[in-house]
Order: sequence, then C-alpha cells, then structure tokens
Amino acid sequence: MKISIERGTLLKAVSQAQSVVERRNTIPILANVLIEAEGDSVQFRATDLDIEVVDKAPAQVERAGATTVAATTLHEIVRKLPDGALVTLTADSATGRLTVDAGRSNFSLATLPREDFPVMASSEYQSNFTAPAGMLRRLFDKSKFAISTEETRYYLNGVYLHVTDADGGKVLRAVATDGHRLARIDAELPAGSADMPGVIVPRKTVGELRKLLDDDEMDIAVSVSETKVRFATPDITLTSKVIDGTFPDYTRVIPQGNTRRLEVDASEFAQAVDRVATVSSERSRAVKLQLEEDRLILSVNAPDSGAAEEELAVAYGDERLEIGFNAKYLLEIASQVDRENAVFMFNSAGDPTLMREGNDQSAVYVVMPMRV
Amino acid sequence: MKISIERGTLLKAVSQAQSVVERRNTIPILANVLIEAEGDSVQFRATDLDIEVVDKAPAQVERAGATTVAATTLHEIVRKLPDGALVTLTADSATGRLTVDAGRSNFSLATLPREDFPVMASSEYQSNFTAPAGMLRRLFDKSKFAISTEETRYYLNGVYLHVTDADGGKVLRAVATDGHRLARIDAELPAGSADMPGVIVPRKTVGELRKLLDDDEMDIAVSVSETKVRFATPDITLTSKVIDGTFPDYTRVIPQGNTRRLEVDASEFAQAVDRVATVSSERSRAVKLQLEEDRLILSVNAPDSGAAEEELAVAYGDERLEIGFNAKYLLEIASQVDRENAVFMFNSAGDPTLMREGNDQSAVYVVMPMRV
Repeated sequence: MKISIERGTLLKAVSQAQSVVERRNTIPILANVLIEAEGDSVQFRATDLDIEVVDKAPAQVERAGATTVAATTLHEIVRKLPDGALVTLTADSATGRLTVDAGRSNFSLATLPREDFPVMASSEYQSNFTAPAGMLRRLFDKSKFAISTEETRYYLNGVYLHVTDADGGKVLRAVATDGHRLARIDAELPAGSADMPGVIVPRKTVGELRKLLDDDEMDIAVSVSETKVRFATPDITLTSKVIDGTFPDYTRVIPQGNTRRLEVDASEFAQAVDRVATVSSERSRAVKLQLEEDRLILSVNAPDSGAAEEELAVAYGDERLEIGFNAKYLLEIASQVDRENAVFMFNSAGDPTLMREGNDQSAVYVVMPMRV
Repeated sequence: MKISIERGTLLKAVSQAQSVVERRNTIPILANVLIEAEGDSVQFRATDLDIEVVDKAPAQVERAGATTVAATTLHEIVRKLPDGALVTLTADSATGRLTVDAGRSNFSLATLPREDFPVMASSEYQSNFTAPAGMLRRLFDKSKFAISTEETRYYLNGVYLHVTDADGGKVLRAVATDGHRLARIDAELPAGSADMPGVIVPRKTVGELRKLLDDDEMDIAVSVSETKVRFATPDITLTSKVIDGTFPDYTRVIPQGNTRRLEVDASEFAQAVDRVATVSSERSRAVKLQLEEDRLILSVNAPDSGAAEEELAVAYGDERLEIGFNAKYLLEIASQVDRENAVFMFNSAGDPTLMREGNDQSAVYVVMPMRV
C-alpha cells in the first residue's frame, strides 16, 4: 500500500476513527486502525467490537493495499504535522512497518496484519430511511442527560429510539431515563421509518454519533435492525450494536393529571437553583421550591454550612405547594429549554413533576421529587 | 459588621484570597476567609499557615467589625451572583451567621470566631525595595518549570531569588533546578535590594504571586527577610514563609567550556521534538540529536511501537555529535525562548548542555543529557 493524502483530510478521517478506540485494550489489534486503500480513496476503520466507524477520504493511491497501525499514535503524529503538508503512507510488507512521510519528518510504525482486524459482520436491516442531521441531533442531545449510568440496569444505559403514536399521529421518539428523571423527545416521522424496530442506542454510540450531526442540512442515512443501528454520511459510517434488553414501559411514569402550572424564565430559574445550591457541599443537594401566587421561593438548608433563599417572580395561580428536588436534576432539565419559558406541571409533593418548553408537547421531561 | 460592596469588586478580592486556601483542611478555620471591615474598606485574609494573602477593597461600611466564613462557599456565591449587583454582608453575632444579600438572593453562612483565625506574625524585613511587575514575572515565569517536585529535596522545591555578581555588575537572580535541568534568570538590580538575603520562594507562593504580576507597569513592593518574603500591590499583600534550607551551589552545574554551538529556530525545534517523541509512549522519552554541518537530525527509536526521524536546517559548524535528551525537558526549555533563536552549547554526549536565547546572557538553561 502506498498513498498520498493532504494532512487536513487525513486528520479529520483519523480523528473520527481513533475516538472509537478504547484507551485500554487487552486485545492489541483493537488499539489499531485498519487502513484500506483502493481506487482513489482510503478508508480508516476502527472498532471496540460494539461500535465500528469507517471514515472514507479521497487520496492519491499509488499502490492499493491495507494494513493496521496504532490509532492514537497515527492520530497524534498527523495532528502535530504542519497544516497543508502532503502525507505519504507506505506499508512495507518486508519489514512489517508503515512509514509516514511528510516534508522532512519520517515515521516508521509497527503494524499488525489486516487479517487479524475484526471487521463487523454486515447485517440485514429491516428499516432504511434518511433523516436530517438537525433532527437526530435534537432527539439525542435533549435526551442523553437522563441516560442511566447504573451498569446493573443495562437496559437504561442508552436512548430508546422508536416509532410510536402521539397526539398528531406517528412520531420518531427518543426516551432516556435513570429512574429519577426522564426525557421524552419527539420528531416528525421520517419517510420509510414507520416499520423501524425500537432500539436502545448505547451511551457511547450517542456520543460518537454526535460528531456526524454538526451540519444541520446534512441528510443522514439511518438503518435499523433488531440488533444493530447504522448512521451514515457520504464519508462516515457508524455501525453499533444496540443494547440487548427491553426498555421499560416509560409511559406509566409520565404524569397525566398534574394540574398545578408554574411558568418561569428557564435561565433565571437555572441561575437561582445554581446559586442556592452553593451553600451545601453534599452531592445530592435538595432544593426546596415554595410555590405561592406568582411567587417562587427557592431555598436550601444545610445545617452545618448555612442556608440560602431566593425569590423569583413567576406565573403561578394554583394552590400553595412545597416540593423538593435534587439541584443537579433541576439544573439539567432547565438547561434543555432553549426557546421559551419552562412550564412545570405539579401534582403533590410526592408525585413526579412534568416539565416542558412553553406549550410544546414534543419535548417532555419528568423529574421525581425528594423529601426536604 | 455590615458592609455593602459591588459584586465585581468583591469577586476579585475573594478570588485571590480563596485560591490560597487548601481544598482539604484538618483545621476548620483554615478553610475560612477573615473579613475585616473598617473605615471605607474591607479586607479579606486567607492563609494556609505558610502563605497569607490580604486583599483590600473599597466598601460602604455601615458597621465596622470582623468575622470568618468558608472561603470557597463565599467565592462560589459571589461568582454566581449577577454582574453589577450590590452585595450586603451582615455579621449577626447573636446567631453566629453571616448573611449575604443581593437582590432577591439571600444566604446565611456559618461563621467561626475571628479570634481563632491565625494571622501571620508581622516581621522585620531586612530589605525593602520596589520592582516592576514585568521584571518579577520574567524572573519567576522563566525559572519555575525547573522547580523540583521531590519532597525529600525540599530545598529545591522553589525558586532561589538572590543578589549576585554577574559580568555587568550585581543582578537580581532567580534559579531553579531539579538536578536534571536548571534555569538561571537575571534582572537588573532594583534600587535598595543590594543587601537582600537570598531566599528560596516555595512553588505555591510562585503560583499565587503570578496573579499579582499581570500588569507590566505596576510597581510591586518587595520585602525580604531570612524567613519571609512579602510582595504587595496597593490592594493585595502576599506574605510567605521561605524554604528553610540551603540552595546548592548551582554555579558548578553551569558549564563554562562548552564550545560546540548550534543555533536553531526555537519553535521549529520544539515542534520537531514534539513530533518525533510521539512514537514512544514511555514517560521519559529519549530524543537523539545528531549534529552535522548545518544539519540537525532528531530521532526516536521505540522498538515496540516504531521509530521517527526529522531533519532541520540549522547553523552548526563544529565536530559531529550524537547526544540524547528527555523529550519533555527539551520541549520545556525550548518553550522559554520567546524572541530569538535558541542557541545550544554542547561539550560531549555525557556533559550538561547549555541553552540561551540568541546571545542574551540574562537567561541561561542547563539540561543533562541521557544515554540513547
């Protein structure tokens, strides 16, 4: 194999690939990236056995072929090369080395045989459709904070992406929950996705996918089977196993009968929560919300270190209520609100509380209260 | 005590004070900041028993007095208050609390008695002089990278600031070394400093002092005794114990007879060192320098992972030489060069190497080679 490629193009392709590679590997080849050159392009492939990313870039291929080298070393080298440099990669089968040449720099890297690289088996996908990057980004960005980190509840360690019925007809829905809070985000059903099986997309996949979704206008090809999900741009293909488990029936968790309505400026609210929480050094800081007519009083009482109280002008016309929440949870859901006021719907101090952005029903958050 | 103070002014004063406070304290009052209000100003004092910082700010003092509160909590609260807010601090001796009021925010913080706060004893200083902030910054910034982190060699855990004879007469000199590399930085002798005793300024003091030195034109009042050093601006006074030990005779370490002269663009050199070091994952990466007529070849050989080589055009007219260095040490000294080319003076592959910026004798670096 011998190819020449512009440093910027190479860096982009290798960056995406190496980020999938786990820092600590017991299987040496999993630290490597598979480089395959043919025609007028080169492919970089990396995997952790659950996720595989393939990044294609244009290159001048002098001699087709393939090899594998340490992903992080190659990435570091390319990153440190001067911008605009032309990089030549040459695999020497006699020495088993890959040389990287650029200007007066010259590197020779240990390789492992391409045959040893675990390429993910190709699958049949039941559903293939395209969706705008912006739509997918919203689905995952607004739900991922609620993904559980408890390994024993592995079926909550991802975002549940599925098709379901909503008020206005079928929607594509992302749900995540850790049992303390829940996010339910809906998007318009992309054409051809109606028969998509529901899948739990793992946390790491959600993170890697995010890098494909920066360009709002880009169309993403999505393929879904019972066991795998694939997202592809013209250059990058991300394939991931999905979590083998059943996502619990989240609909029971979403309160329907909450009637006490509080409307508040989301950013003012978040800042106030952040400030009052300062007096407590505990990790699970409880903030008390006292609701009175058009007034919200936030308070924290930490016997050892102090107390804090802050009042906000809000829209509230229902019965007085005192309810407590974990400060971190309140901050996280308040920070999801990007356009309008945050609308909270309460029942009693012991019941789950619902939050949404204005009257928008397409993003709904639920948070469990805590005793204060 | 009752005072009102603008949030920005308060934040600045508390920031400087709280940064001296250690995160983990076995003595509770050391986590606190002493607030003393009198006349038309307020003082914030914090200490770790080795360093004391006092920050003075204008305030509207309604009732003079003093108290102590948790430094980080107060800092966090003030940081989170909206810009431009007027903050009122009220000490209530009946409840033993300090209330912090700003707009609709209200905090009540636990206090500890001012009497318990360990105020550093005032000392007689043998030498008092003023020095421009820019000069002090250069002395410490260019030497601190070489401070030793070995606790057993406590007398190397700081910068040795002293007055000595140089070619052009007496100079104020900063020296730091960890046995592997050394930095020796000279500055013009400030008026009145000639009788200053040599002191070893501890690493943490160097870090805290740095925050006083941002404004080039500011004059810093410096006071030095055998046991303490004090740096003061009109607002901030930093007092620190110095390291109780004898700094070794560093002059013997600085080679005088090195004759092989290499001149190289410092930034090109640093980038090349950084690149070739990439192929080795070891912490103490050895880079080999091969010197030939007007050529420098840098190389690293890591049998497991690979090899790297890079050639630079340099000015070198002496005998061929091969010499190895720790990559990190080379990078650190090369990054001290800010104006001119780096000039290296070598003797043999086993002898310490000297580096300076062009022909400037006021900043000299020494680095020990390693076998490659």
